[in-house]
Order: sequence, then C-alpha cells, then structure tokens
Amino acid sequence: MSSSASISPGRFATIFNNIKQNKLFEMVVIGVILFSALVIGAKTYDIPASALTVIKWLDYSITVFFLVEVIIRFLAEDKKRDFFKNAWNIFDTLIVIVSLVPIEDSELALVGRLIRIFRVLRMVSVIPELRTLLNSLLRALPQLGYVALLMFIIVYIYAAVGTTFFAAINPELWGDIAISMLTLFRVMTFEDWTDVMYETMTVYSISWIFYISFIFLNAFAFLNMLIGIVVNVMEKENAEQYQREHADEPTITDLSRQLEELKQLIHQKMT
Amino acid sequence: MSSSASISPGRFATIFNNIKQNKLFEMVVIGVILFSALVIGAKTYDIPASALTVIKWLDYSITVFFLVEVIIRFLAEDKKRDFFKNAWNIFDTLIVIVSLVPIEDSELALVGRLIRIFRVLRMVSVIPELRTLLNSLLRALPQLGYVALLMFIIVYIYAAVGTTFFAAINPELWGDIAISMLTLFRVMTFEDWTDVMYETMTVYSISWIFYISFIFLNAFAFLNMLIGIVVNVMEKENAEQYQREHADEPTITDLSRQLEELKQLIHQKMT
Amino acid sequence: MSSSASISPGRFATIFNNIKQNKLFEMVVIGVILFSALVIGAKTYDIPASALTVIKWLDYSITVFFLVEVIIRFLAEDKKRDFFKNAWNIFDTLIVIVSLVPIEDSELALVGRLIRIFRVLRMVSVIPELRTLLNSLLRALPQLGYVALLMFIIVYIYAAVGTTFFAAINPELWGDIAISMLTLFRVMTFEDWTDVMYETMTVYSISWIFYISFIFLNAFAFLNMLIGIVVNVMEKENAEQYQREHADEPTITDLSRQLEELKQLIHQKMT
Amino acid sequence: MSSSASISPGRFATIFNNIKQNKLFEMVVIGVILFSALVIGAKTYDIPASALTVIKWLDYSITVFFLVEVIIRFLAEDKKRDFFKNAWNIFDTLIVIVSLVPIEDSELALVGRLIRIFRVLRMVSVIPELRTLLNSLLRALPQLGYVALLMFIIVYIYAAVGTTFFAAINPELWGDIAISMLTLFRVMTFEDWTDVMYETMTVYSISWIFYISFIFLNAFAFLNMLIGIVVNVMEKENAEQYQREHADEPTITDLSRQLEELKQLIHQKMT
Repeated sequence: MSSSASISPGRFATIFNNIKQNKLFEMVVIGVILFSALVIGAKTYDIPASALTVIKWLDYSITVFFLVEVIIRFLAEDKKRDFFKNAWNIFDTLIVIVSLVPIEDSELALVGRLIRIFRVLRMVSVIPELRTLLNSLLRALPQLGYVALLMFIIVYIYAAVGTTFFAAINPELWGDIAISMLTLFRVMTFEDWTDVMYETMTVYSISWIFYISFIFLNAFAFLNMLIGIVVNVMEKENAEQYQREHADEPTITDLSRQLEELKQLIHQKMT
Repeated sequence: MSSSASISPGRFATIFNNIKQNKLFEMVVIGVILFSALVIGAKTYDIPASALTVIKWLDYSITVFFLVEVIIRFLAEDKKRDFFKNAWNIFDTLIVIVSLVPIEDSELALVGRLIRIFRVLRMVSVIPELRTLLNSLLRALPQLGYVALLMFIIVYIYAAVGTTFFAAINPELWGDIAISMLTLFRVMTFEDWTDVMYETMTVYSISWIFYISFIFLNAFAFLNMLIGIVVNVMEKENAEQYQREHADEPTITDLSRQLEELKQLIHQKMT
Repeated sequence: MSSSASISPGRFATIFNNIKQNKLFEMVVIGVILFSALVIGAKTYDIPASALTVIKWLDYSITVFFLVEVIIRFLAEDKKRDFFKNAWNIFDTLIVIVSLVPIEDSELALVGRLIRIFRVLRMVSVIPELRTLLNSLLRALPQLGYVALLMFIIVYIYAAVGTTFFAAINPELWGDIAISMLTLFRVMTFEDWTDVMYETMTVYSISWIFYISFIFLNAFAFLNMLIGIVVNVMEKENAEQYQREHADEPTITDLSRQLEELKQLIHQKMT
Repeated sequence: MSSSASISPGRFATIFNNIKQNKLFEMVVIGVILFSALVIGAKTYDIPASALTVIKWLDYSITVFFLVEVIIRFLAEDKKRDFFKNAWNIFDTLIVIVSLVPIEDSELALVGRLIRIFRVLRMVSVIPELRTLLNSLLRALPQLGYVALLMFIIVYIYAAVGTTFFAAINPELWGDIAISMLTLFRVMTFEDWTDVMYETMTVYSISWIFYISFIFLNAFAFLNMLIGIVVNVMEKENAEQYQREHADEPTITDLSRQLEELKQLIHQKMT
C-alpha cells in the first residue's frame, strides 16, 4: 500500500524507539555483548581449526547485530544530531564502523582484535547503572587533578635527583628520568623497594633518606587527597540533606515574620 | 503417670525453649564448638595412634551433641515450619546430617573432614553478635555489585589485551584469558608486579603503559567504591539522626500553625 | 628544730606535688627518658670497653633517677592508695623495681636489657598527650573485637582446609594449623602470596579459588570494620555537636509552650 | 624628560604589579618552569655534545629569566619588607641566587645540578592552587605529630628488642638500632617481611609474635590516626556548615525573645 510506503519519519522514530526501549531488546543486546566477550576469551585458548571457523562466523554475526542495533538506536532518535551529542553513541558507532573494515593485513589484524576486545566496553554503554557509575568517576577526576599534579612534581624531582646520583649504580633502574620515574612508582607501590634501596645504599649509605622521605611525602599527599574527597562529598551531602529536610517546612525566619505580624495586629487592634 | 505421658506439644516447646534460651546452654554449645575447632586443629599435628582414637571418639561425641542441640532447638520452635525459614538453622541441620553419614571410603573421607571444619562456622550461627555482623556484611554486598562488575570488565579487557600481546612472551602468566586475569589480579595486589612488567618490557618497551593505566584505573574504581559506601552510610546515619532528634519535639510547621491559631483568636476576640 | 621534724604529711604531699607539677621537673624527666633511649640505642653499636663502663654507670644513674621520681610522685599523692589505681603508676613502679634487682646471671641479663628497653615506654606515661592517645586507642579495642573474632574464624577455617589439602605439597607452609595460619596471614598482607599459590596450583590447579576467595573475604571484613568505626565515630560526633549547638538555646518545645501560655493569657484577659 | 626620570617609586610598583598580575606573564613563567623541567629531564639521556652546549645556554637563559621575574615581583611589592615575609618568595630568591653562583668545581657541580632540579618546585610557588594545597598539607602536619611520635616509640622499642635478639642471626638486617629501624619500616610496608621473619624463626621459633604484634600495633595506630583526622575534618566541616546555615536567619533564642515581648505587650495593653 502507498500509505505504508509514505510512512512519516516521526512514526519510524516511534517504532524504533519502542524497539530501543523494549526490555527484551536490551536483554538481547546485553546477551550478545556477553557472548562476544566469551568469544574473545575463547580465542585465547588452543582451539581446533573448525572451531576457529565457527568463531569467525560468530564474529561476523556479532558485528552485523551491533550494526543493526546502532542503526535502530540512530533511527529511534527524533533529532538525528542529538545522537552524536552522546559520547557513548559515538563510541558505539566507531566500534561498529571499525569492525566493518575488512582486515587482511597481519599488522592490522592485531588492531582488529583490539577493536573486538573493546566491544566488551559496550557493556558500560548499554547498562544504565554502569554508565552512571562511570560518569560519576569521570566527574571526580578534575577534583583529583591538582593532587595528581603535585604528586607528579614530587616524583619528577625525586626521579631527577635519583638519576643524578644512582644512574652509575644501576642504569636499568635509574638510567634516565623516565626509567627513574617508573622505578619510583614501583617504590610507591612498595614492590621490592628495599632491593632498590639496599643496592644504592652500598654506594651512598645514607640514600635510605631518599626512599623514606619519598614514601612519606607520597603517603601524606595521598592521605590528604582522600580527606579532600571525603570533605567534598560530605559538603555536598550535607547541603542536599539540609535542602531535603527544610524544603517543605517554614524556616525560623518565616516564624519571626509571623510573630512580627502578630505584634502589629495587637498594636493595631488595641489602640 | 498418664498426665505426663499425654503432655501437650506446647508444653514440650516451652520446656525446650527454656533450655534453648538458657545462658548456660548457650555457653556449653559455644564451648563444644570451640572444642571441636581445637580437635580439628589438633588433627593437623603428628599425633600418636592412641590420641587419634581418642579424637575419633571425641568427634563422635561432638556430632551427637550437635544432633541433640539441633533437635532441642527444633522442638523449641512453636511452628515447626519457621525453623527452616532461618538460613542458619538449615545450615546447622545440614552440618549435623552430613556428619552423621558414616564415611569409610578414602575419597569421601576428605569431604567428611571438610564438613568437620565447617562446623567451626557454627560459631557464627550461635553467637548473636557475629550473626548480626555477617548479616550486615551480606546486606552491603549488592551495593558493591556494580563497582565489582565494572572492575571485572576492566580486568577482562586488560586480560584479553594482555593475552593478545604477551602470550608468546610468557605463556605461564599470559597463556589464556583465565591465567591472564589471575596475573592481573596479582598486579592489582602489587605482588611482584614489576617482574611481570620488566619481562614484557623486554619485547614491548612501552608495555609499562598497560600496567600503570591498569593500576590507576583500579585504584580509581576502588576509591570511588569506598566513597560511595561512606556516602551511603552517612545518608542513612543522617536520616536516622534527624528522626531521633526530631521525633519527640514539635516541628517548625507546628509552631507556625500555633501562631496562625493565635492570630485567629486575637481577630475573633477583638471584633 | 623540732617543728621542722614534726612536719605534717599533708605539707609533705604539697611540696612533692609542687615538684611533680613543676614544668621543669617534667622536662627533666622527659630528658632523662630520652637519654635512656639513646643509651639503649648506643649499646647496639660496637663500642670500646671504656664507653661500656660509662654506659653502665649512666644506666645506674638513670635507675636511681627514676626511683627518686617515682618516690616523689608517690609522696605527692594525698591518698597513697590512689597511686596504685593508675595503671601507669603501677607500670612505672614495676619498671623501677625490676631495674633495681641486681642481675649477674647471663640468662637474666637479657631480661634486664629488655626492662631497660621498656623504660622508653615511660615516655607515654609522662607525656599527657600520648597517654590520652593510647587511652583512646585502648577504648577503640573492644569495638574491633567481634570483627577480629570473625576474621580469626575465617583464617582458622581456611587454615584447616589448607592443611588438609596442601600439607603434603609444602609442609614448611602448610605443615600444621599454626603454620598454615601464619602462611594465610602472609597471604593477607599480599607478601609473595602468588609464590604460595603457584606452588599449590601445580597439584590442585583450581586452588586459586582458595586464595582469591580468602583475600576477598578478608578485604570485605576489613572494609566493613572501617565503615563500622567511621559510623560509630560519626554518631558520637553528631550527638556531641547536637548537644553543643542546642545547649544554650531554647528548644522548639520551649517555644511551643511559650505560645500556649500566650494563648491562655489572651483567653484569660479577654473574657 | 626630567618628569620620567623622577618617576615615583609608587608608580614603579604599580607598573610591576600590573606585569606580575598579568595572566600572560603567569603563563610565561609556568611555561619557562615547565621548560626548565624538560631540560633537566633531557640531561639524563645520552645526548650529543652539541645539544649539551645548547642546554647549557638554555640553562643560563632560564636563570636570567628567573632573576628578572623575581626582581619584577620584588619591585611590585609596595612594602619591600613584606616580600621576605612570604616563605615562597624567600625560596624563589634563594634558588635564583644559588643558580647565579658560577660553579667550576666538579664537587659543587652536583650541588648546582640539584639546585636546577629544585627549580621545578617553583611550579608550586607560581600556581596558586598548588600553593593552597601544600599549605593545607603543612597545616595538617602538627595534628599528625603525636601519632607519629607514638609510632616512632613503637618502632624504637621493637628495634631495640630486635637488635638484642636477632643481631647475631643477620647483622645486615639487625646489626644496630638504626639498621633495625630500617628493617622494621620495611616490615611495616610488608616488603618481603616473611623472608625476615622466617630467618629469625630458624633460631627463635616463636619470633613470629614479634612481627605479628608489630604489624598489628602499627596498623592499629595508623587506623586511629586516620579516624582522628576524619573526625577533626568533620568537626570543622560541621561547625562551618552550622555557621553558614544559621548566619542569615534568626535563632530560636531570638524567637523566644520576640514571644516574650509579645506577652509583655499584651499585659501592658490590657491592663
């Protein structure tokens, strides 16, 4: 019929929106992502050639399914531009597009495998709770910025000092400033840090000051960061709580004004 | 006498309830559990055959004691069905029943020993404070669910990437995705993680990015989980505190209403 | 003069109390304790025989000084019995008395050295801030009791299971239940825990479940303990704050009563 | 012109203040510090002699730039004395002055290099947010003082005991009290602490008590410190919040007084 052929774009959007918001559709998408994760895992085992062919075809099906899913979600959007305002949609689309590129070259095959691995991240874009969690993680990032910068400066200075003194003792640990920073990160995690220290103490017997002061400075900065975050969280929490508690009841100021009115009333009536 | 023979079930329940709630009975039960724990410990030492016989008989006595105790607690219950609504009662009954099965086979003997070990867990079912503690632990579990899922996704993706690149370098650490996940859990606990890193850095010199980013992502997710829990706990705490503080005193809204009534009264009386 | 001979005990106490509360006296005591700590430290170095003699005499002087100090503090007390109600006083007296016992035997010489070392703990009994700190530490102990018991039960059960399965693999780590508990404490601190795990995985390839579940259970119990303490601290803090804020101002209940009185007054005056 | 020659010092200060507070000037200073940090890093790599000459000249330029910058900031100050009241200004001036001293001697060359490294710390003195952060870190220090003292006393006593018993077993770890304290700090960070323990357990089989008690004592003191800080932060936070909330509205005391006035008014008007 001509009427079905000339279906309005709006009705299209409604149909696809219904599909998109369907609980079953969401379950199927999560299931396929889970399945694609299992396929990725399965490929890391020694598997017979026949199974490899099956996996190859499964891979194709998953790619096609994801393509269809992204298209449905795109069509479900009323304003097509809004679709690309959501970072998760861009991420999903990119994953699908790159998956579609046929890869023959062995060099790029590795990239193809990585793309397939990152498809597991789609789990985050599909489950709303995980998306919320990740967003709150990202929102906390700038807050940590200055402490991270301070810690970086500390590590950089210690790495420069370490390279100056210890490069001759063990170039594998203190060869240049990048290697020294890696070594200091290792010391920060307490990973065999005494081995590193004992080695330099054979030449500079007071070099323990270098390590102990470094550990204390970092522990101190870390402690402060933790407290900073807790205070920040508490402030927000308290403010919200105050709003909640006092939203629906009059304030003391309101009471005071009522009393003032009462006083006026008595004055007025009595004279 | 016939009257004692035709004792009512209700009176039975009362008698057994008295026994069950007797402080001394509780002490004896805790004592026997402690003793059974000591017997388990003693069996791990090289002990003469004679002592082994003693221990064997002690084991039997403990089993019989636990059987009697569970029966008393069962009989103390008014409605017999409620007994099995309590997960701890089911746990206790199961432990007793499995302990009663005579085990001769050497294969099953191991299972028998495990059952005897799990009898120590009865300590939790008997001491109310521990039961409360464990219940509160279990109630906190779902709250941690989504963060755990996010961390699992992170580990899974890193394991897939790690297997892809490092499987050829050291199959014992990166052979398949399961082994890689175990290796990454090890990196998460900072256990000799630099050994793992230095090995892969001999082939891929920039693979330190893999480890450092993994450590930071996990630390970050863990930090967020901690804060999430603290905020959650604080919210509950604040709400409860607000309830406690304001339960027995009039609200500001009440005051405002009182003032309004006063105003009405003055209007009414004066005109 | 006879008057000075018949000085009253009360006046004695006042004099010694003055000495005891003298800031300078406190400083001297802290100084001597610090000095005794340094002497203990010095003795651990290879020192010439002449210095050893000096140190021996310094030791005697410190003992005598501490004896005099404790006597002064004892005499400063009005009621002599109260002196021994303070645990710190008993500790100080014990240290002094044991220091006085002449030790010739080489066996007991070690005990003598330990006593001298514990004299450094007198720093805590002398500096009030440290005493307060330690008291608050001790007050927090019972609160941790049940979590500690739960963690002990977890470790005990895992140790029993570990001994059952792994004793044959490495008796040095899993030989009996005591050794197993030490090994599990090591796993808890993440100290080379993968070495322990890899060893048992050669025989029982799924034994990683044992370790991972143990680590998670402990981390979880520890996390809960931390939260429990924070909540407890917050509750006290909030209650105190509420007291502070509302101590000097009328409550809303007071206001409500005032309003009620006003209403009565208007009724009464108008009719 | 003579007028420009006789320019007032105040106008000078204004000009330099404008430069100092210029956003672009700040950016340039941060840029130069960043660049000086990169130069320090570059010097740790094997670089050709020609590049070394370039770096040498860059070093001179940076020194001159910093000299000019400090002079500008000095001249921008209205009261020249206030300049040296700011610890950061003193730090900056010292860095510049020491950089200016020509160093030929190879011994002092090392000092020169260290000074250049510490120039990176100027990042903190230039970026206000970092300065605030560091100040808050320093303000938290005294609060940690007594806990640090307590932990030091614990470590000192354990080190003295450790040296007494274990010096003969392994002088490299327990030789004298200083080495023992370093070993105990290592145990505190869980760094291969079981290796240290197993060694002494071959001689004193119950020496595990020494290590476990030490670890628990420290964990306990650390936990308490953490809680102390959180409580402290919360107290301040709550007090500030109370101030914020109640600053602009009447207190309940004000209301009570208003009611009292009303009562007086009614009494007065009616009689």
